[in-house]
Amino acid sequence: MKVQYPNNIKKEFTKLAVSHSNRGMNLETLLNQSNDYYLEKDIALIYKKPTPIGVVDVSYKNHKKIIEKAYFKEQSTLDYNGVYKGRYIDFDAKETLNKTSFPLSNIHPHQIEHIRRCIKHHGFAFLIIRMNGFHYLLTGEDLINYIDNNDRKSIEYKYIQEKGVVIKEGIRPPLDYLKAVDEIFLKGE
Amino acid sequence: MKVQYPNNIKKEFTKLAVSHSNRGMNLETLLNQSNDYYLEKDIALIYKKPTPIGVVDVSYKNHKKIIEKAYFKEQSTLDYNGVYKGRYIDFDAKETLNKTSFPLSNIHPHQIEHIRRCIKHHGFAFLIIRMNGFHYLLTGEDLINYIDNNDRKSIEYKYIQEKGVVIKEGIRPPLDYLKAVDEIFLKGE
Repeated sequence: MKVQYPNNIKKEFTKLAVSHSNRGMNLETLLNQSNDYYLEKDIALIYKKPTPIGVVDVSYKNHKKIIEKAYFKEQSTLDYNGVYKGRYIDFDAKETLNKTSFPLSNIHPHQIEHIRRCIKHHGFAFLIIRMNGFHYLLTGEDLINYIDNNDRKSIEYKYIQEKGVVIKEGIRPPLDYLKAVDEIFLKGE
Repeated sequence: MKVQYPNNIKKEFTKLAVSHSNRGMNLETLLNQSNDYYLEKDIALIYKKPTPIGVVDVSYKNHKKIIEKAYFKEQSTLDYNGVYKGRYIDFDAKETLNKTSFPLSNIHPHQIEHIRRCIKHHGFAFLIIRMNGFHYLLTGEDLINYIDNNDRKSIEYKYIQEKGVVIKEGIRPPLDYLKAVDEIFLKGE
């Protein structure tokens, strides 16, 4: 069934749908769709890691192991990793509804340790931060610099705006974060 | 309690324990210990990915999600990945009791596809194969070459001996596979 809108309402709706298309969508979904696009187009090979679980109880049915009780564990690394132009990519996606600062409680100490190690081994580590309706790529280096030089428990929004790169949004891919990687890490290499 | 062996038995035992020390051990355990060593010594950052699961049923207790039923899914990528000297590393561990050939049924079609993609994106993809009491590193390139040019459903042992590199075994790390990576992929870079 096709819904008929009065002309002016339809316009308003279309405009909203385009300009804010990705903002209401789950960040993980957007990244998975972007990674599928990169895979299909042979641009990069980047996956979300499965969430680790702790298995408490199992049973067997037709020789297949069935998990009867388990709980989700915290990822001690970042959620996404892979390869782009031969380089190691490692990142996590974070979002906050806070408008003036990004609370560091969103990043577990293990993950910060992991980011330090990635940098040491010359991988490209970063965060994708959804905040105030934008998606920013903030490098691991800028994150660590902030943490090491501030006593605050959150990163001011102006730091993210200054150091981060706004990720271009579209249909395919919904979040073209590798363009930001080119810009920041590869500098047009 | 310290067990006292008669002198000759103790010797025999020690000899066996040294020369075959790693062979009876679970391959995954050896690799996890090796990766822990590489992590500690700041040599590389390589992790085993969690096994993906399909969740059928959950419950909530004190606001925590508990998995009440789930099953293990097949990994469509390889089990281990990470970064070494800035390069992307991606591999899987396989073993066979077969003495004359390595059955290709050990590698899922999705994994072969994944290896092709890794190579295309200039990652270092390989298998660690435990066979006839040795551990071989066989590159993704040599694996794909074999598959693309043979109708056989298994890889002859002599091909693995010829193309693969024997991984040095020890105490720490139990399997120094990054030495083989240096030799094959980095050629003393």
